[in-house]
Amino acid sequence: MYHKIEQADLSALEAIAPGRVFAGGQISEDYGHDELGGVAHMPEVLVRVDGTDEVSAVLRYANANRIPVVVRGSGTGLVGASVAVHGGIMLETTGMNRILELDEENLTVTVQPGVLLMELAEYVQERGFFYPPDPGEKSATIGGNISTNAGGMRAVKYGVTRDYVRGLTVVLPTGEIVELGGKIVKNSSGYSLKDLIVGSEGTLGVITQAVLKLLPLPSHSVSLLVPFDSMEAALEVVPCIVRAKVSPTAIEYMSRETILFSESYLGKKFPDTHASAYILLTFDGNAAAQVDGELEAVAELCLEHGAQDAYIVDTDERKKSVWDARGAFLEAIKASTTEMDECDVVVPRSKVAQFIRYTYQVAESVGLRIPSFGHAGDGNLHVYLCRDSLEKEEFQRRLQQAFALMYARAGECGGLVSGEHGIGWAKREYLAQQCGAVQMELMRGIKHVFDPNHILNPDKICCS
Amino acid sequence: MYHKIEQADLSALEAIAPGRVFAGGQISEDYGHDELGGVAHMPEVLVRVDGTDEVSAVLRYANANRIPVVVRGSGTGLVGASVAVHGGIMLETTGMNRILELDEENLTVTVQPGVLLMELAEYVQERGFFYPPDPGEKSATIGGNISTNAGGMRAVKYGVTRDYVRGLTVVLPTGEIVELGGKIVKNSSGYSLKDLIVGSEGTLGVITQAVLKLLPLPSHSVSLLVPFDSMEAALEVVPCIVRAKVSPTAIEYMSRETILFSESYLGKKFPDTHASAYILLTFDGNAAAQVDGELEAVAELCLEHGAQDAYIVDTDERKKSVWDARGAFLEAIKASTTEMDECDVVVPRSKVAQFIRYTYQVAESVGLRIPSFGHAGDGNLHVYLCRDSLEKEEFQRRLQQAFALMYARAGECGGLVSGEHGIGWAKREYLAQQCGAVQMELMRGIKHVFDPNHILNPDKICCS
Repeated sequence: MYHKIEQADLSALEAIAPGRVFAGGQISEDYGHDELGGVAHMPEVLVRVDGTDEVSAVLRYANANRIPVVVRGSGTGLVGASVAVHGGIMLETTGMNRILELDEENLTVTVQPGVLLMELAEYVQERGFFYPPDPGEKSATIGGNISTNAGGMRAVKYGVTRDYVRGLTVVLPTGEIVELGGKIVKNSSGYSLKDLIVGSEGTLGVITQAVLKLLPLPSHSVSLLVPFDSMEAALEVVPCIVRAKVSPTAIEYMSRETILFSESYLGKKFPDTHASAYILLTFDGNAAAQVDGELEAVAELCLEHGAQDAYIVDTDERKKSVWDARGAFLEAIKASTTEMDECDVVVPRSKVAQFIRYTYQVAESVGLRIPSFGHAGDGNLHVYLCRDSLEKEEFQRRLQQAFALMYARAGECGGLVSGEHGIGWAKREYLAQQCGAVQMELMRGIKHVFDPNHILNPDKICCS
Repeated sequence: MYHKIEQADLSALEAIAPGRVFAGGQISEDYGHDELGGVAHMPEVLVRVDGTDEVSAVLRYANANRIPVVVRGSGTGLVGASVAVHGGIMLETTGMNRILELDEENLTVTVQPGVLLMELAEYVQERGFFYPPDPGEKSATIGGNISTNAGGMRAVKYGVTRDYVRGLTVVLPTGEIVELGGKIVKNSSGYSLKDLIVGSEGTLGVITQAVLKLLPLPSHSVSLLVPFDSMEAALEVVPCIVRAKVSPTAIEYMSRETILFSESYLGKKFPDTHASAYILLTFDGNAAAQVDGELEAVAELCLEHGAQDAYIVDTDERKKSVWDARGAFLEAIKASTTEMDECDVVVPRSKVAQFIRYTYQVAESVGLRIPSFGHAGDGNLHVYLCRDSLEKEEFQRRLQQAFALMYARAGECGGLVSGEHGIGWAKREYLAQQCGAVQMELMRGIKHVFDPNHILNPDKICCS
């Protein structure tokens, strides 16, 4: 169905991006998979693109010649969205990594898609500004974050990536360039194509520039680590905190087991590991008294609800130690097993305890080790299914069983398949089951409007 | 092209919504226009719908019989989006006005679309919660607010309606019912159909239920009224406030002329009218000391930048007096003339002064009175073009001239056609000019995916 790359195609691409076209053995096998590796396939040609016009020229060529194109940032995805399942061209955006403008009057920063989240966070922080989205994976690109509507730790108070995307420059699969939104706060000017691109995992267009909203950097930030006797006790306090009308920046849940993996992976001690479950909270703001007041109120509430203690994490060193551990959970669990897959469901935050309890039952009934951690404050859980010493086929069989149970339960709780990692290749069947035929048909219709020849990241999200 | 309503259709509709179907002389002429009345056309039949299933049955019937359908809330729109330009069926949603659930654990409220903004605001406030979107028109329905992605006064700090829509129940033009999003904070589960519905002005589906995000009600709120010698002086301080990294809830600009219209319209005195230009700010939060500190810092900044004074508006009575006046500006300007039309551009907030200055030039060169006010903090301006004693044809001629100039200038400033009032019928040509053929083609493609027979609010936004 798709055209296979020939020498003439390589020459044409070389004319568009001189010196930045690689084929065959010149391409590292890293480009054949993402972070979890559930699907693997090499692109036929890798193009390190350098700007909007170049992306446009490549897409125009690919569209005319029916060559599939996949965009890749840092490759930190977990659902195969950036894997070239049909071969073809891979556009690598990590060379487009300039921060183009900080506009202090409009509180925006304009970036290329290959800027890494950690680079952006540091750049704006040094200048007294704050880019709130804070996914655990700091080496992801901003383009990737936008493409999955990444959430992260601070969604409880500050929302998700979508809430910070003011404007996008997008190259459509036909090579046309469109400017969506801008440095504007409000917009009621037709269908929000910008919001359709956010979270579309590189299937509707290629993001080549983004205008992001910033906030002034809060002057105070304190964390609180609270140990509990059990997962249930830890998670049941979260709705009480919400009811108490305080607004923590983050509320993370972690089990001792996960913390121990992280200690061993990082080779660094976590401040406390004697309890079986913890919640870790952050509070921020510009008035120290208010931030401290919120922290104290929550600490008291936790103690009333069975917390063993409440440790204030206020020095930079201690903050770094706990948040570094939290940031390493995925890698740490990965290092604890031979292979794993994940489930990134989001449920109403009042259902988190119930859902985690259910994963324990699934682990038991299916016979898999299923560690998890989660953004307790926003209902987004990261549940890992570990192969350990199982045979590959047996693991696959149990995996499918466990996924089917867990996604069905998420739906029953009023939740959805993915909170922040996306659908990509790996979760298509679960999305289809949950959304039903009518919504999937709308999505396929939209895909066809943007990409009539289905050359851009084919067979992802809603197509197969 | 569309089927005209016959007796058989009335009977079929009556079977769906017994006692709530009205035709011909039974329909008040109010249903033939919206608040500005730039386009007028009566529906052939009015159905006061009562629930999702009923909306579904009406749409299924209309789709099978090629009858156009327009949804109407309170009719407070300004661009003709709720006018039945092809006749057919008007679905009136004001009877679907129940607040269904306040979920304190998930911080959401679930409402029917006909709930009025002022009803919702009061309901949640009485219970210690806060629904931040605050358009001037408090008698608009929530369904209408979602359909235009309404913004309002507090967008500076809290964002717009889109940011508060967690989930929607939507009936598609085919009669199919879909549930989009839910009581969830994060979502990366396929294309965001929810965000496509937000701001689509009733052209893609009918919203029959919404899950809205709430915040805890801030305990302190103070306003500051600052008089200046000139519009330029008043507006030039706004970027300085933003640069100073304080976050007011609202920054509104108003001229003496507009305030005087409002005084005369409401028959109530504004606290101060001696200066030619004002900015009105609000600050809110949970720590009185911080709120007061921010207010003082901004007052000082304004005085350094040429403010004549800075009046603290802290009693409930004074707050009501200034904000009631602000809320009445549109009606007050309307009462000052024989007929008017409006321009609701949004520009980067650093360009507000420049744009208002340009409207003065246009008023001069075209020969029209053009009063304006605006959300200075978010770059959204409301500019009114008044007919006064002009002949109808001459007014239309000058109106077109003025619109063409102003929308072109908004585009040059990096702005867009509409910040919060939408495109509807009246602004289609300006949207098309600004977005260009490629984006308009995408929007038309999306419309066709949702509504293959083009029965739902035809010829609005991107079609004609």
